[in-house]
Amino acid sequence: MQDALLTLQKFWTDRGCLVVQPFNTEVGAGTMNPATILRVLGPEPWRVAYVEPSVRPDDSRYGENPNRLQTHTQFQVILKPDPGNPQELYLQSLEALGIDLAAHDVRFVEDNWAQPAIGAWGLGWEVWLDGMEVTQFTYFQQVGGQNLDPVSVELTYGIERIMMAQQGVTHFKDMVYAPGVTYGELFGQSEFEMSRYYLDDADIDTNRELFERYVAEAERLIEARLPVPAHTYVLKSSHAFNVLDARGAISTTERAAAFATMRRLSREVSRLWVERREELDFPLTKSTLSSMGGLASPSPAPSQLPAELPSEPATFVLEIGTEELPPHVVDQAIEQVRTLATEALADSRLTYGDPQVAATPRRIVVTIPAVSAAEPDASTLRKGPKVAAAYDASGEPTKALQGFARGQGVEVSDVITAEFDGATHVAVAVEQKGRTAPVVLGSLIEKVVEGLRADRNMRWADPQLAYSRPIRWLVALWGDLVVPAQVSSLVTGRTTYVQRGDDTPLVDIATATDLIPTLGAHGIVLDVAARRTEVIDQASDLAQSVGGTVDFDAESGLVDEITNLVEQPVGILGSYGEKYLELPEQILVTVMRKHQRYLPVRDSAGKLKPYFVTMANGACSPDVVRAGNESVLRARYEDAAFFFDADLKVPLAEFRSAIDKLTFEERVGSVAQRADRIASVATKLADGIDGVDSVTLQRAGELAKFDLSTQMVVELSSLAGTMAKVYAERAGETPAVAQALYDMECPRTAGGALPQTLEGALLALADRFDLLAAMFAIGAKPTGSSDPFALRRAALGVVAILRARPELSTITVEDGLKAAAVRLVAQGVTVSDESIEAAAEFVRDRFVQQLRDEGVSAGVVEAIAPLAGRPGAAEQALADIHALADDAGFAKLVEATQRITRIVPEGTSSAYDASALTEPAELRLESQVATLPDQSAAGLPEWAATAGDLTDSLNTFFDDVLVMAEDPAVRAARLGLLQSVVDKAPAGIDWKALSSAVG
Amino acid sequence: MQDALLTLQKFWTDRGCLVVQPFNTEVGAGTMNPATILRVLGPEPWRVAYVEPSVRPDDSRYGENPNRLQTHTQFQVILKPDPGNPQELYLQSLEALGIDLAAHDVRFVEDNWAQPAIGAWGLGWEVWLDGMEVTQFTYFQQVGGQNLDPVSVELTYGIERIMMAQQGVTHFKDMVYAPGVTYGELFGQSEFEMSRYYLDDADIDTNRELFERYVAEAERLIEARLPVPAHTYVLKSSHAFNVLDARGAISTTERAAAFATMRRLSREVSRLWVERREELDFPLTKSTLSSMGGLASPSPAPSQLPAELPSEPATFVLEIGTEELPPHVVDQAIEQVRTLATEALADSRLTYGDPQVAATPRRIVVTIPAVSAAEPDASTLRKGPKVAAAYDASGEPTKALQGFARGQGVEVSDVITAEFDGATHVAVAVEQKGRTAPVVLGSLIEKVVEGLRADRNMRWADPQLAYSRPIRWLVALWGDLVVPAQVSSLVTGRTTYVQRGDDTPLVDIATATDLIPTLGAHGIVLDVAARRTEVIDQASDLAQSVGGTVDFDAESGLVDEITNLVEQPVGILGSYGEKYLELPEQILVTVMRKHQRYLPVRDSAGKLKPYFVTMANGACSPDVVRAGNESVLRARYEDAAFFFDADLKVPLAEFRSAIDKLTFEERVGSVAQRADRIASVATKLADGIDGVDSVTLQRAGELAKFDLSTQMVVELSSLAGTMAKVYAERAGETPAVAQALYDMECPRTAGGALPQTLEGALLALADRFDLLAAMFAIGAKPTGSSDPFALRRAALGVVAILRARPELSTITVEDGLKAAAVRLVAQGVTVSDESIEAAAEFVRDRFVQQLRDEGVSAGVVEAIAPLAGRPGAAEQALADIHALADDAGFAKLVEATQRITRIVPEGTSSAYDASALTEPAELRLESQVATLPDQSAAGLPEWAATAGDLTDSLNTFFDDVLVMAEDPAVRAARLGLLQSVVDKAPAGIDWKALSSAVG
Repeated sequence: MQDALLTLQKFWTDRGCLVVQPFNTEVGAGTMNPATILRVLGPEPWRVAYVEPSVRPDDSRYGENPNRLQTHTQFQVILKPDPGNPQELYLQSLEALGIDLAAHDVRFVEDNWAQPAIGAWGLGWEVWLDGMEVTQFTYFQQVGGQNLDPVSVELTYGIERIMMAQQGVTHFKDMVYAPGVTYGELFGQSEFEMSRYYLDDADIDTNRELFERYVAEAERLIEARLPVPAHTYVLKSSHAFNVLDARGAISTTERAAAFATMRRLSREVSRLWVERREELDFPLTKSTLSSMGGLASPSPAPSQLPAELPSEPATFVLEIGTEELPPHVVDQAIEQVRTLATEALADSRLTYGDPQVAATPRRIVVTIPAVSAAEPDASTLRKGPKVAAAYDASGEPTKALQGFARGQGVEVSDVITAEFDGATHVAVAVEQKGRTAPVVLGSLIEKVVEGLRADRNMRWADPQLAYSRPIRWLVALWGDLVVPAQVSSLVTGRTTYVQRGDDTPLVDIATATDLIPTLGAHGIVLDVAARRTEVIDQASDLAQSVGGTVDFDAESGLVDEITNLVEQPVGILGSYGEKYLELPEQILVTVMRKHQRYLPVRDSAGKLKPYFVTMANGACSPDVVRAGNESVLRARYEDAAFFFDADLKVPLAEFRSAIDKLTFEERVGSVAQRADRIASVATKLADGIDGVDSVTLQRAGELAKFDLSTQMVVELSSLAGTMAKVYAERAGETPAVAQALYDMECPRTAGGALPQTLEGALLALADRFDLLAAMFAIGAKPTGSSDPFALRRAALGVVAILRARPELSTITVEDGLKAAAVRLVAQGVTVSDESIEAAAEFVRDRFVQQLRDEGVSAGVVEAIAPLAGRPGAAEQALADIHALADDAGFAKLVEATQRITRIVPEGTSSAYDASALTEPAELRLESQVATLPDQSAAGLPEWAATAGDLTDSLNTFFDDVLVMAEDPAVRAARLGLLQSVVDKAPAGIDWKALSSAVG
Repeated sequence: MQDALLTLQKFWTDRGCLVVQPFNTEVGAGTMNPATILRVLGPEPWRVAYVEPSVRPDDSRYGENPNRLQTHTQFQVILKPDPGNPQELYLQSLEALGIDLAAHDVRFVEDNWAQPAIGAWGLGWEVWLDGMEVTQFTYFQQVGGQNLDPVSVELTYGIERIMMAQQGVTHFKDMVYAPGVTYGELFGQSEFEMSRYYLDDADIDTNRELFERYVAEAERLIEARLPVPAHTYVLKSSHAFNVLDARGAISTTERAAAFATMRRLSREVSRLWVERREELDFPLTKSTLSSMGGLASPSPAPSQLPAELPSEPATFVLEIGTEELPPHVVDQAIEQVRTLATEALADSRLTYGDPQVAATPRRIVVTIPAVSAAEPDASTLRKGPKVAAAYDASGEPTKALQGFARGQGVEVSDVITAEFDGATHVAVAVEQKGRTAPVVLGSLIEKVVEGLRADRNMRWADPQLAYSRPIRWLVALWGDLVVPAQVSSLVTGRTTYVQRGDDTPLVDIATATDLIPTLGAHGIVLDVAARRTEVIDQASDLAQSVGGTVDFDAESGLVDEITNLVEQPVGILGSYGEKYLELPEQILVTVMRKHQRYLPVRDSAGKLKPYFVTMANGACSPDVVRAGNESVLRARYEDAAFFFDADLKVPLAEFRSAIDKLTFEERVGSVAQRADRIASVATKLADGIDGVDSVTLQRAGELAKFDLSTQMVVELSSLAGTMAKVYAERAGETPAVAQALYDMECPRTAGGALPQTLEGALLALADRFDLLAAMFAIGAKPTGSSDPFALRRAALGVVAILRARPELSTITVEDGLKAAAVRLVAQGVTVSDESIEAAAEFVRDRFVQQLRDEGVSAGVVEAIAPLAGRPGAAEQALADIHALADDAGFAKLVEATQRITRIVPEGTSSAYDASALTEPAELRLESQVATLPDQSAAGLPEWAATAGDLTDSLNTFFDDVLVMAEDPAVRAARLGLLQSVVDKAPAGIDWKALSSAVG
């Protein structure tokens, strides 16, 4: 291992990097060393490489976890500015480490880095070596809240991982550190003892005090304009915070406050650093630091066209070469290029065939067949004054005409006359020379390349361009000519880059139509659909080879992603130990899909088989790649098995009491207190609901959230609920209880699966009502940009559950929140009525917004908005409105009903003196109303069914009778009569809105 | 510079060292990294090399000092166990760095390392490269209070220094760190800002709180048996302490307390670490860590003697090869080897010539000419019972005889009779076979080598031996035979090691008499006197070559030291800029002598010339060595000039007020308060002393200690007082004031120069009285092993000044202390009478002890002990006793006088009734006494001169008169008469003691 570090130091110093030492106070990552975090700021060049033992108290595992260490070794490289070819340099460094790139599968997998605590973000990748993340590769965009110019490239090698893979060991302790000594022998004791400190023994009061003191010292030093020592105190405060966090002593509020503090300090330090460097006149700008070995060759001068251009139409091809785009950007790019190219062509007078666009993560290619050689010439008229104004009475040119002619650079005698919109004007005929194809296409290239945008864009060495990832080359051919163009620092040419591991990574293209075949000849499958088919075919074949299948329907999203992760899909079948099949499937699948992008192989019954398919990117040595991927998966499963076995030894009650140590939010108590409240609220909500199994509900409530203290969920938090179910089953709880525990975490995302069981639904509601009530009570409601407690998701969860379960339609948002409030108050939390109402309104607003997002028409939304506090009822109303949408009678009834609501003032009583009614229309209506059942609690279909006759009566009534009669008694009776109609109609409907919606 | 670090890493990893990373909390030295401080403990092997940026807040200089940085870069190597040839490995590493050892002068200069704060010490060297210290080379003996077994070798390279020398730059900022970037560009801002923090901006309260918190955390972790995190908190506390210290916030008491705390914690951590490693079964003992490249070859098997030994006498030579001994040990070794060898020979019956011993730092050679080939055989008688007891009356053997015979293994009939001490015994004749010379000499070798001891001894790889430095080889020849011997792991041979840079560093010696000529042929001057002559001759010649001389009388001690620093003196003349001659001579000389061991060159008038002579050790390239040494001196002088110029710009008053910020001891105030007290005490002491210039005394008192805040004294504390004088002169103070300021710091050491001026003497006394009174008042008196305030030296200073200045003979220790007490009380310090008396007694005891150490006879010491509180008077008495030593009359007078003190009870009044005296002897004595002048305040000579007649009278009186007459009146008168004699005799003399001393 030490040789690897020396090799990397040598490699990077040979390429002009400085070597500095690890920082002498604890840092969580090499990024935090001032050699990165400060030096990337400002205009000075910087090239540095160093080792950084990175301390993450939270990763403490007593040295027992095979892959997780409280101190791991990063090798950090900063290249500022971006040298233009950092990926190539990086790959060379892997070769220097003895990694045969022809044999291995190296992939650049989207990974965007953001560290809000220091106001920093960047775009880049995690680099995979046979499925293992070995390096973080990031183009820094912002640090300390400052935009970076120039941009820095950061490479962070995870040395232990690379070494474990190289040495083929499965536990970090078994790695050979130096001849004759293992990593475990050297660092095992330290791992154990520091873990003990971070997890069990660190004094919480002391570390709180240290945090405060460090922060105060940093503030004083910023005041004193000393960014360097200030930064060390920011680091110390950050470490103290991490220690507290690992000890479980940080509540969500504290975390938010501490992050805000650290973010503020980081910004101040960054600002101050740049100021101080500027005062020193940015000394390194005069150094030779930026002259580095291995730089990308500068772009050549733009091509020259021959004097004589072809006259025949020819195919135009443009290849935009990028560094690996994120999968979803590949699809976006295709559409974007199509649109931009089409628009650019539409502005020309060239003729051309149908543009075709295809893309891989590394290139977007647009092909336009039969682009004519030149635009035809054209003539246009420039309009001058009206003839009447152009000549005076004596036929002499007026000043207006003289001015026009001068402006057009012609003699007065050269003007002609022409009709414009029916009026005769003087005019000048201007000949427009048709542009040649290269000129038009050059302009197209500029528009397309400059116009590329993704949802998140970055800067790189290029002075102007911004895109999802750097654009590194342009191939642009019209026939066999290079179309000359320069877009910022990029110049078009005929050289394309095929796979990096290819024997000839650079290939010249003779003529436009050669590009795609050439790429194909080098293995690149340019077309997304073709690539997807390849992925599916290869995966199918490989699965079949072991008698299995892949459930492509279930994996559809994953297949899409994989398709855009590679240019040349090369399926590799891997296997894992049968014994891991004893682990719950959810764990196995979560790891394969989310962490590794592997397609799980199943048998005909859908049961997992111990195989997976991964897609390497291009030619490689399948055995090597298989072995690498298998070992990554094995390590992850080994981890999981370790946690699983450990968890199974612990009684559920013990887990449940351990969550008392997890602070949820200091003002609203521990996770255990929250779980108690949830159980109680769920019981309350169950009151009067049919079909609730109270034994199940009670038991599930008792166990609620217990899995948050299991090791598996601590490791893989996405398995919360999932593991509760699994562990509950294993512990002999009933299937219903286990399912309810699973259900209570549903839906996990907007649109996610809902609770299957009624008891689970009640617990899920209670969970969310508690969260909302509690957070609003303590004033922690979401703001525009910040929603740390995910209250939006909670609100949508409430809505989704209630919308989906008619049996819960009696549950209102307000009742749920009030039930939660009662439990909070019992635990000593102050809950105001205003906060309850604010929370209720928040939920209702989310619901209304959701309806709009679902495409429900504004009118319908408005019509049922009064029901927003009862999502179940609203859902029913929505369905009813939908069902009745084509029912003309219903529309008329609504129309009639809404007339009532327009005339009758709000608050009018339905009591009336029937004797005041005398007109036939009145009497007819009255008799009908008298026999009409009260449908105020019923639905619209019932109303439509029972009140259909009313339509005519009402319309006649309005036609024949003046409601606002002069006789007050008559008026009152008429209004009362009408109101009684509304009172018997389904409540919670805005009739006016409904009427305009269905009318 | 970064290449140098990589080169060293490569060099040491090629030799089996691990590489680890710098520690991730601030450390003052690589030693504190757990990879050293913990790993050297216990039995496990360990080989490690690493870079350590070492933080020393106290060395902060805002990046302005050319050589001093708050963070400097150490390269640290630990070899455990000692590989047997660490010096050779080290020198190879210098070669790897591109240093041509044939051209440069590399020397190993004694430097013993001790860090009491962690209970650690070791012996070794600072390695000089052309006069510059580039490496600390230490054999660790104890760490954390634990004896180390095996011993570790520590190499600490000062990278910046090596690089500055290599690059020939004079300011660290100008060093090239990597191509195109200087050290200053990279680290200049950090040096400035961190200096600002450490010197000006660190919050004192915060750092105090941090210190306390860190200590508490370390204690808790020790309690929890977690040495690794505990150690990090010890380091953190140490750094917090250093920050406070650099901020000037640490008083002497606080320092002592903090050191005690850190020492205790370090011991606990060390103990715990070994315990924990033992619990883990010392894992690394099973590793291959100890198998390292470049190990010393194992000793060969002991030589075999030929079957036939020579029969003629032959010369015996024994060379004990060592690593560089400290200069004073070389001289001691010669005497020790002579004694041990002589004793060993005296126990044999060999004949031999006069043993000759000579030595260099690297070898001790004893030559014994004409050692006979074998001891003659000898016969001895073993004594049995007396004949009378051996046979019974019937002539039969008694049981006693039978037992004796059985014990001797002979028959009763074999015994003979012989005279022993005049009595006839039975006896047995035993034949003693003479041993051969190799056997006797082999035993001699063992005794000599095992018997070597220095004042401080160390362990190394050898399992049993202990000496000042490692013993690495033994050459032992008798004639041309190797004398076989094995002493622990050392085996005798015929191979000697000449200078390491020699073409043939190993040379075989054919025969004993060849050794010394061979060494000589290789340039080694074995004889100390010859070497000393060489040093003087070469230095003289070189000085003469520039028209100068060396004052060898003044430099005698330095010449001795230089003589024993080299095996082959090669004088190099160097020069320094004339401009530095403007600096005070004391500065220039202090740096040359103390720091560099250079001989200053002077002109005929004794004024410094800008030259120096250094002695390289053996052949080298003089220009290279000269240039190196000159640059070291230039850097030191540049430093000094910088401070000197800066200091000259500051008014004395400003310095004087700045010392108010220096805490002397928190309970007794600042240095300024102490200076105020000193001035006041000196004025009080001056009362009634003739010849005091009160204006000078007052002004010097006002300025007392001002130079402690000058930069020069802060840098070179040995110049305190010296700089006061220089700066006072420059500031226009009178020469008398300037000299008094110098004087008040005298004597600096026991036996050092005393104040020249009376005013200076008074201030010096006041200084010491204040210190003693203050420290005893607060209970900080010295203990057996600890005297942090140097009170012993202060006491001896008081005594030395008072002994030397008769004009101050009226000043008593007690009066001085009381005067100091008054000022302390005025500043609010509580001073008890007991503490004053204890301090006075402490001074008196030191004086008495000093007299004994000076060889004054016990009797004389006892005789004048009553004067110990008045050292001036005591000194006079001592001189008088010495002068009168041969005066028989005086002795008799004393004898007579002491008879009085033996008879007359203590407290007897000298008043008596003369009328009661009637006897002639009485009357004669009385008449003489009546006319005797009172000499109680005079000296012994006066007493002798005036009281000479008394002797006879007294003796007659005692002969003729019974003092203790029965008549009480008579008795009283006689006693009174006698007492009146004593009362008129010089006071303060113990006559009994004096009598026995001079009798």
